[in-house]
Order: sequence, then structure tokens, then C-alpha cells
Amino acid sequence: MKKLINDPFKVTVESIEGYAKAYADIVRLVGPHVVSRKYAPVRDKVGVVVGGGSGHEPLFLGWVGYGMADAVVLGEVFAAPPPALILEATRAANGGRGILYVYGNYAGDRMNFDIAGEIARDEGIRNETVRVWDDIASAPPEMAHERRGIAADLFVIKVAGAKAETGASLSDVKRSAEKARDNCRSFGVALSSATIPATGKPTFTLGENEMYFGIGAHGEKGVKKTKMVSADETAEILMKGVVEDLPFRGGDEVGVIVNGYGSTTLMELYIINRKVHQILDGLRINVHHTEVGSFLTTQEMAGCSVTLMRLDEELKELYDAPAYTPAFRKCPNLLK
Amino acid sequence: MKKLINDPFKVTVESIEGYAKAYADIVRLVGPHVVSRKYAPVRDKVGVVVGGGSGHEPLFLGWVGYGMADAVVLGEVFAAPPPALILEATRAANGGRGILYVYGNYAGDRMNFDIAGEIARDEGIRNETVRVWDDIASAPPEMAHERRGIAADLFVIKVAGAKAETGASLSDVKRSAEKARDNCRSFGVALSSATIPATGKPTFTLGENEMYFGIGAHGEKGVKKTKMVSADETAEILMKGVVEDLPFRGGDEVGVIVNGYGSTTLMELYIINRKVHQILDGLRINVHHTEVGSFLTTQEMAGCSVTLMRLDEELKELYDAPAYTPAFRKCPNLLK
Repeated sequence: MKKLINDPFKVTVESIEGYAKAYADIVRLVGPHVVSRKYAPVRDKVGVVVGGGSGHEPLFLGWVGYGMADAVVLGEVFAAPPPALILEATRAANGGRGILYVYGNYAGDRMNFDIAGEIARDEGIRNETVRVWDDIASAPPEMAHERRGIAADLFVIKVAGAKAETGASLSDVKRSAEKARDNCRSFGVALSSATIPATGKPTFTLGENEMYFGIGAHGEKGVKKTKMVSADETAEILMKGVVEDLPFRGGDEVGVIVNGYGSTTLMELYIINRKVHQILDGLRINVHHTEVGSFLTTQEMAGCSVTLMRLDEELKELYDAPAYTPAFRKCPNLLK
Repeated sequence: MKKLINDPFKVTVESIEGYAKAYADIVRLVGPHVVSRKYAPVRDKVGVVVGGGSGHEPLFLGWVGYGMADAVVLGEVFAAPPPALILEATRAANGGRGILYVYGNYAGDRMNFDIAGEIARDEGIRNETVRVWDDIASAPPEMAHERRGIAADLFVIKVAGAKAETGASLSDVKRSAEKARDNCRSFGVALSSATIPATGKPTFTLGENEMYFGIGAHGEKGVKKTKMVSADETAEILMKGVVEDLPFRGGDEVGVIVNGYGSTTLMELYIINRKVHQILDGLRINVHHTEVGSFLTTQEMAGCSVTLMRLDEELKELYDAPAYTPAFRKCPNLLK
């Protein structure tokens, strides 16, 4: 697999540097693995710190800015950031009202964020944690807290960031983020593998006419390999899994994410979204807002995931609130 | 190549339908190949109509909304839209102050937009045309008007849309769009081919260790096949071509687009952008704004292009003006 890189072992730091150069009006490079808002910390606001392994761009670094995260910390490709770097991000985001860590539920991230949180507390920085665990393919419903975090990161970080922007306390920001997390479900499928830049090797193999449902965002084992099916059938399988898991019911109002994993075109994602909306219409589930794009990628992996978040008035308001980050923007709809 | 589609001959209409479902707060489906702003036409404003072949998403359909296009018309994948559909978009965008067509400079598009423009004039709808021709690889500088249009479409449509929003006359909107177009230069490279959904076949082939500079956005012949070089060397080759062509000079102020053609990751594009900024710093060319992402794609082709637009006060103001579309948003930077 050919990639536009220099030294394969400098992919992460060089890409973060290039990112910070592009968005100097919004973000600031704190260190080679840490980026904060340009004017961080924000006094008297809970600081939202996000992060994990890199290689999933625009997640997480694209979501630093007004209304979302205060700082991001990134490990190497698909590897948790070490505690010392998480601490660096924590200090950069500390405006005196405490820190909320939001990240995907993976063992390495859990361990390292917990260690960093302990040290931060010793330094007098209060902190709490919300782990995102939306991937229904990774554990049964009664073990939701063992599930992996995938595209719902976007919803949870958006909600946490908006709540923090209101001046809410750390416990209130945490409560809203947990509510967002607990109302999200996702299910994904891969059509091809991804290549890690440092090795140049695919993380798994799939036959020319195969697809793999339930695959993780780092090539973790899925639940079912099948022959390729149509976009509509794919959407039906993904939606069945998501809808039945929470479950979502007629009359619910939801936010939708149709996420591409890398090389899947927007055309394909729009076709999936077409069927997702048809299914939701049939179930009398109302769509408040839809996001279609590549938000959490797995390098150049082909495939997609569907996420639903059940909304109440608070979640709608927080989701709709203004945000201005490099990769996600909510602003007034100026149409008239 | 596996794709998430249903009928290969319905990819365009199904994807447009799914797109319109996702962004019902911004756009409205006028017909199977035509999308307008939700509240179009806008009275007493020049209507900006954009379009061309589909398969390059988010270009063009992602840029319909406040501050950019009023309507978009899309042909089948890599094929110009027929005149009847262009007329449909023209009528949908006609607010009584005339229509500006903005599209990439390709023979099929030229012919069909010209025919539609003639018929529209017969119907009493004044119209003018700005063809985008930024790709330096496709003809020598003295034949600029024979060059292909690539990622500068984004800049030119942004400028035209912002100017139209001020209530300017058709001739003034055209003049600003031409100024933007004439100050843009782009140069691209492919690392792999793309697959057209209807055939399932790649449009060209490249060796495992080859890259192709100057390739067009539909697989048109490039200027040089080489062995793979590093990201920094790639950026140097692209920038040399772009900078020397206009030429851009020390003291100039520019907008930058680092565009991905499909399966090239944001990590790679950020690494390219890092070097682009280093080169611009070295030349004492000032960067006003940078866009990094996949704006004009060629299905799942791997590769990128670099675009520079030389800015004056008018172009800066128009580029920075608010825009709210599905795929491109400028809003107040709320950071403090």
C-alpha cells in the first residue's frame, strides 16, 4: 500500500504538525502529540480532553475548538497515548473547573487515562471520565460497558463540549455526556482492510467478494463474514442491529451518523443514508439531524457504520448548539 | 472493487436522494439530478448554478446553501449533465437577477451548459458563465483557457456565492468569480486508480511503486509517471509547478487547498500541508487560510492536489464571508 508519508515512524507527529499549521486560527500545538484550542485554558469552564490512538482522523483532533474539546492527545497509530502526554493535555485544558476525559472504551486508553487522572488529582486538577461504548458488535447488551467506542464519539464529544460551554459544573457535564453515550448505538461493516503506515501491512484480509460485519475500528474481529450484499441490504442489517439493541421505538427522535471508514465514497454513504431514512420512516422514528461523512476512519479501510442517538430536549439543544472546530461546525443556518 | 451500491446504473440518483434526505434543513430535491437551496429561488439575487459529472463528491452538490451555490445539476459519474437538467437547475435558481454558471472546463460541460444558457435566454433568464481552469498539468500557461478545472472550483464557487449574497449585479458577480479563477493554480498526483461504479473497472493502472503527476480528475493522462517519492518530495514537486506557473511571489497572500482524491487519509494530507507551509514560509508567501480535506474526489482514487489562490482585499473578504452548506461552512470563530 502506497502512502504519502516521509519516515513511517514520524507519521503521527508530522501529521499533527501539518494539522496545526492548517488551523492556526482555531488550535495551538502544545507538544508533538497534544493540541489545544488557540486560547486555552478557558477560565471557569470545565475542560474537555479527548484522545486515543491516531490513524482515525478527523477523530479526535479535528474536534478541538469552540463548543467541543479543549485539548486532544494522540498516541501513535492505533495506540493509546501514554499518561505523560495525557497530563500535558490535561494541564493545557485546565481552566479551574475540572477536566472531563472523553474517549473510546479500549483497555490501553482506560489504563493510561486513569493513571494520568490520578496524577492530575495529585496536582489539584479534579477530573472525571466518560468512556464511549457504542459498538453493539463487541459485547452483548448486558455488558455494554465492555463494548468498544466507535462513531458515537462524535455525538458524545459534541454534547459534552456544548454543556461545558454553558458554564455547567464537572458533574453536570459528565451527566450530560453519559446520557448521550447511553442513548447511542452503532454497528459497522468493512469491505477491505487498512494498512498501518509503520508496517505497510493490512490488519486483516477479506476475499474479493466478502464483507465483514461488526469489525472494529482497528481490525478487531467482527461477528459475521458474508458474501457482498447490496447497499440496501447492508443498511438493513446495520439498522436491525442498532434499532433492536437499545431498543429504539416508534415516536423516538434520533440523531443519525452514517460514517465512512476511509476509502468509501460519499456516494456510497449517501446511498446507505437513503435506506437508513426509509427504514426510520417505516418505524415512525423521527430524524432530528443526520451527519454523513468520514468522521472516525481506519486509515483507508472501506466500509461504514451507522449510529443512532436517541434524543431528548436537553440532548437536542446541546447537539444543535454552536461549534467551530476544524472538522465539525454548527453555525446559524442563514438560509431565508 | 467492492462498492456499497444497489443497481450500478442508479448510483447517481440514489446517492443524490440520500444526500437530500441528510440535509433537508439546507437543500431540496428539485429532480433526480437537481438540488437547490431549501428556499430557492432567492428573490433579487444572482443565482449561482454549479455542476458537472457526479463521482467527485462533495463537489459540487455539497456546496449548495447560503453563501455558495443556489442549485446544482449532476450528470452520471464523470459525465456532463444534459441541457434539459441544467435548465431545470437554472429555473430553480432564477430569482430575477440572472444566473451565473460556474463549472470545470471540460468539453461536455461547456457544450451542454452553453446550450442550456441559450434556451434560458430565450426564456428571458439572463446568464453568464465562468469556467474553472486551474490544472497546470493540462495545457501550457498561454493556453490557460484550455486547462481542466480541479479543486479551485471550491475557491471560485465560494467567491461567486459570497459576491452574489451581497446583492451584486450579474456582471459584478462574474467579475469577482473570474478574478478568483485567474488567481488560482493547482497541480495533482495519483497513487492509484479509481473505479467507475457502472463498470467496476479501474480507469488506468499504476505499478506497485509508481505515482503519476498531473493526472486528471477522471483519469486523464498526466505529465509524468515516477517511482514513489516521499510526501515532502511530492509536496515540493506540486508546489514548484503551482508557484512558478502564475507565478506566486514573496509578499503575496494566498489561500491554500490540500485536496485528497478519495482514499488518501487526512494524516497524509496533513503531512503534505506541513511541507506546503514550510515552502510558503521559505518564499515569504503569506497564508491567509488553509483547507485540508477531500473536496474534489475521483471516487476512491489515492492521491492529492495542491491549489493556491492569490488574494487581494476583495477576495479575502469574499472568501471569509459566512457560508452554510452541507460540506463547507464558514461561521464566526467563537473562540475567546
